[in-house]
Amino acid sequence: MPESTDAAGDQPDDGSGVRERDRLTVPQGLAALSLDALASVAYGPEAIVVVLAVAGGHGLGFTMPVTVAIVVLLAALTSSYRQVIAAFPNGGGAYAVAGRHLGRRVSLVAAASLIIDYVLNVAVSISAGVAALTSAFPSLYGERVWLCVLVLALITGVNLYGVAESAKALILPTVVFVVAVLTVIAVGLLRAHPVVQPTRPGPATETVGLLLLLKAFASGCAALTGVEAIANAVPTFRSPRVKRAQRTEIALGALLGTMLLGLSALIGRFQVAPNPTKTVLAQLTEAALGHNAAFYVVQFTTMALLALAANTSFGGMPVLTSLLARDHHVPHVFALRADRQVYRHGVLVLAGAALVLLVGARGDTQALVPVFAIGVFIGFTLSQIGMVRHWWIERGSGWRGRAVLNGLGAVLTAVATVIELVAKFDKGGWLVFLAVAVLVLLFESIHRTYQRIGRGLHVGEVPGPPRERRSLVVVPVGAVNLLTREALSAALSLGDEVRAVTVAHPEDVDAPSSERMREAWEQWHPDVPLTVLTSRTRSLTRPIVDYLRRLSELDEHDRLVVLIPEMQLPHPWQRLLQNQRGAVLDRAIRRYTDVVICRLRFRVDVPR
Amino acid sequence: MPESTDAAGDQPDDGSGVRERDRLTVPQGLAALSLDALASVAYGPEAIVVVLAVAGGHGLGFTMPVTVAIVVLLAALTSSYRQVIAAFPNGGGAYAVAGRHLGRRVSLVAAASLIIDYVLNVAVSISAGVAALTSAFPSLYGERVWLCVLVLALITGVNLYGVAESAKALILPTVVFVVAVLTVIAVGLLRAHPVVQPTRPGPATETVGLLLLLKAFASGCAALTGVEAIANAVPTFRSPRVKRAQRTEIALGALLGTMLLGLSALIGRFQVAPNPTKTVLAQLTEAALGHNAAFYVVQFTTMALLALAANTSFGGMPVLTSLLARDHHVPHVFALRADRQVYRHGVLVLAGAALVLLVGARGDTQALVPVFAIGVFIGFTLSQIGMVRHWWIERGSGWRGRAVLNGLGAVLTAVATVIELVAKFDKGGWLVFLAVAVLVLLFESIHRTYQRIGRGLHVGEVPGPPRERRSLVVVPVGAVNLLTREALSAALSLGDEVRAVTVAHPEDVDAPSSERMREAWEQWHPDVPLTVLTSRTRSLTRPIVDYLRRLSELDEHDRLVVLIPEMQLPHPWQRLLQNQRGAVLDRAIRRYTDVVICRLRFRVDVPR
Repeated sequence: MPESTDAAGDQPDDGSGVRERDRLTVPQGLAALSLDALASVAYGPEAIVVVLAVAGGHGLGFTMPVTVAIVVLLAALTSSYRQVIAAFPNGGGAYAVAGRHLGRRVSLVAAASLIIDYVLNVAVSISAGVAALTSAFPSLYGERVWLCVLVLALITGVNLYGVAESAKALILPTVVFVVAVLTVIAVGLLRAHPVVQPTRPGPATETVGLLLLLKAFASGCAALTGVEAIANAVPTFRSPRVKRAQRTEIALGALLGTMLLGLSALIGRFQVAPNPTKTVLAQLTEAALGHNAAFYVVQFTTMALLALAANTSFGGMPVLTSLLARDHHVPHVFALRADRQVYRHGVLVLAGAALVLLVGARGDTQALVPVFAIGVFIGFTLSQIGMVRHWWIERGSGWRGRAVLNGLGAVLTAVATVIELVAKFDKGGWLVFLAVAVLVLLFESIHRTYQRIGRGLHVGEVPGPPRERRSLVVVPVGAVNLLTREALSAALSLGDEVRAVTVAHPEDVDAPSSERMREAWEQWHPDVPLTVLTSRTRSLTRPIVDYLRRLSELDEHDRLVVLIPEMQLPHPWQRLLQNQRGAVLDRAIRRYTDVVICRLRFRVDVPR
Repeated sequence: MPESTDAAGDQPDDGSGVRERDRLTVPQGLAALSLDALASVAYGPEAIVVVLAVAGGHGLGFTMPVTVAIVVLLAALTSSYRQVIAAFPNGGGAYAVAGRHLGRRVSLVAAASLIIDYVLNVAVSISAGVAALTSAFPSLYGERVWLCVLVLALITGVNLYGVAESAKALILPTVVFVVAVLTVIAVGLLRAHPVVQPTRPGPATETVGLLLLLKAFASGCAALTGVEAIANAVPTFRSPRVKRAQRTEIALGALLGTMLLGLSALIGRFQVAPNPTKTVLAQLTEAALGHNAAFYVVQFTTMALLALAANTSFGGMPVLTSLLARDHHVPHVFALRADRQVYRHGVLVLAGAALVLLVGARGDTQALVPVFAIGVFIGFTLSQIGMVRHWWIERGSGWRGRAVLNGLGAVLTAVATVIELVAKFDKGGWLVFLAVAVLVLLFESIHRTYQRIGRGLHVGEVPGPPRERRSLVVVPVGAVNLLTREALSAALSLGDEVRAVTVAHPEDVDAPSSERMREAWEQWHPDVPLTVLTSRTRSLTRPIVDYLRRLSELDEHDRLVVLIPEMQLPHPWQRLLQNQRGAVLDRAIRRYTDVVICRLRFRVDVPR
């Protein structure tokens, strides 16, 4: 029995699906939930360098100041999120916080920007992962779009299949990556000269101005994506949940800040300029460690961690869309888990959108990064504003201090959001803006339609009592055999009246001539009248549909039912031999009539 | 009403689907049925040249003798098929002739080789058509595989949609092609020197021996593919059918022979060697007419005619597989025409197989041509042998002469088949051999399984009378509303006993808490008991499946029925908002239980 293999007995009692010993400690939480944020050091510093490089070596000198500004923002964000964790111990995603304190409309803006983030995170992480790989194997550079599609297909497949994610399995790659990056930084800073000379900056084509610095800051903020993940997932921590989650948030902030500052110092020291075929991180690794086995280890680890970072979106977005479905903002199928415990529709929409972005950007990370941070920062800002409102409503002891802290976070992230939008409006920022607007309008329109459907179903009213009517069951038959007998037995059990109907056409398989069918019927004598329809065209379904429509016009007061018998063969490969007439008939009847369709599967015993 | 747009009133009375005035005259028949054979001059002569070129200029000198041998074979074939037409006025395909006179097993060999032909014809015609195009536009040569796939997709799409083929529409391209080729031959033979010098033969790497000549002959026989098409389609001719069909066959033989000999003479005159990026026909055209507008007209016409030639397989193979399905040799779905009057499964299998060949051969015609003729010649031989047997059984006046003529055809084609197999065994001939064997074994195995299914259904016996039983209808419900009322009404009409069942789970959309559901039910008071199942896992289907299994174990003597209600929204885009719970539940119940599943669609009126 396939369904009994499901380990139903191994379930927890609180309905969440997770047992206490499977919940997260601080190191596990850092690995499972911060992996996305930590992995962004693979493309964040590069995003700054790409902008500043237009001002040549002089421009690259501003990498450190820009990074410092970003790290200050990071510090504000982590302190703010420490408070979010305390205030929303059941998970404080931007959608939840905004929904509680800022109203439905604002929560939809948060949801739309989150969806865009999830998609961009997949696209950026995969393309950056492939860039790490092609930096190690430059001959693969020409195939990078295919490699991106391959990685995406792999991740999608895994998520459609629905593997249980184990935080423990994520610790190793995260630790190796963090240790590797910190080693690169430490060794690099101790070296007088680079082992392998990185790409030198070209001549300046622009001078360093405020706009350029703001652009660099806006791009570099992509490194902060993912710091909100811990606050969304407080319930997955082991008790005391809030304390553990807060400690994890602080650890993430410290680690990410250290790595960003360290890499930035290294970029300044070695004067690294961007190179399309070799990432900045790869150049730094070569400069610090040399082109040897260690270099390949760093590249592979980066690739693996970025693939896992892309995977985190597949954990987040289907859950978000299922919440939106529960609130009637997206089609209800997004909340449907069928055979596997997976929100399949959410996974597929995410994969499809990421595919479009990856192919559209030709697998180039730096074409995607500029817009990545916008959606994230909209979410940050809305969360912080919601939190200020939260403290103002609660007014517990020391609420003013908390409100000021979240208020500062709100102001900083709002300023950053405006900078993002202005600095990158022409680089795709308008598209994010437009996408948020379109998504919100779509959510609203779907919500209104569900309300109208509810009115159509008279939801909330007590309907009249159900009415019993006389039932007439029509059974399409093709021959006199055991299947027909079983179908008539079922029909007689269900109907007050039963009629068999057959379509005779000389050119159809299985369709006997009308005379032979009538003869066989009389010989059998099943006490059910047989109507032989002759088809003028070769269509199987038309005559039956027409017959049913005539019947429903004649016998208006009867409940009309069609019972379609089908044989079910024991072996899967034998099922290829079943004709699909039942399915075809079902579809046609459903399309053109309102009758109730019953399908009877009769298991045929196939003798050897 | 979409279904009434079908022009059912415009049908003929004889059931064939064709009115007399739409039937074929000799010129129309030549265009519609011989197009495939005539188009093969685009790759047939080239196939000879490719083989002989290894012996340099001296080898190419043997083009004419090899062509003469092929034309002799053509003459024998057309005379033979003249007799087939007279003997099988209802269509004398190899499958029919072999089936009547040589037994089922041999007819399956014929069918297998025909299927392989149909597939190879699509692949060869499309790749040759694309070669004609890339000869005109050499810059497209690198994209030839994609072009092949594009043309295949186009033809497949057209055939899935099911356009009525009009013989009249085919006359123009066929006439233009024939006139163009004859012009190239006439002008070329009158010229002293070529306008554009064709590719010169390289140095000889082999000497001319018997094996080389046999190989050239075997490859060139690809030019004869398609000459059987007229005999398969006698019923589509206008009266007197047999006379018209015979005249068409003779006309085809004369025209094809003339073109082959003419092109061969031209090849000898201009000493044309094969060139991967420019077809032999394109070289001959340039040599005779120059590189001007006329050259492009010839190339485009060739391309168009070859695409139409590929299309003829889509007319033939789905009909053949439907005949095989009627005889229970392939799954019955191949005989299923659903909404459109198209054997969709046959079309898709043909397209899929051709796609594999085209991509596998990287769009190179000359990689496919060598094996093309093998399947065709197996069919030729079996037809001729069958005909000899036919005359021997009938023994009408002058039967001996006819038997000798077909016997001669049989011997010649049998010899040609052996040459094909031997000369090309290493070039893919073994694959054809293997494919025929595998297909025949598959047909046999399917046939045996259908016989066993028939025994399982006790076909041929009169079954016992149908038995009426008490029915218990279970209705899964999610809320109290109009849909639920409609479902219970239908269930009460059908069942002796009705039970409603609901699955409560806090995490599911639409799933109310068990208390609220119970309250609403009591308030409604529909006189149907409600069972609330609580789900330990988050699965929607598991609790209901388990409940049904328990019921069917308890109430063994009842007929158990599940009635699944679904809302049907008026606009197609609104249907995206329907949750697919009905379909998911249907699938799960069908998979794990034997109960009868009824689906009720309730049209919900959505107010504005």
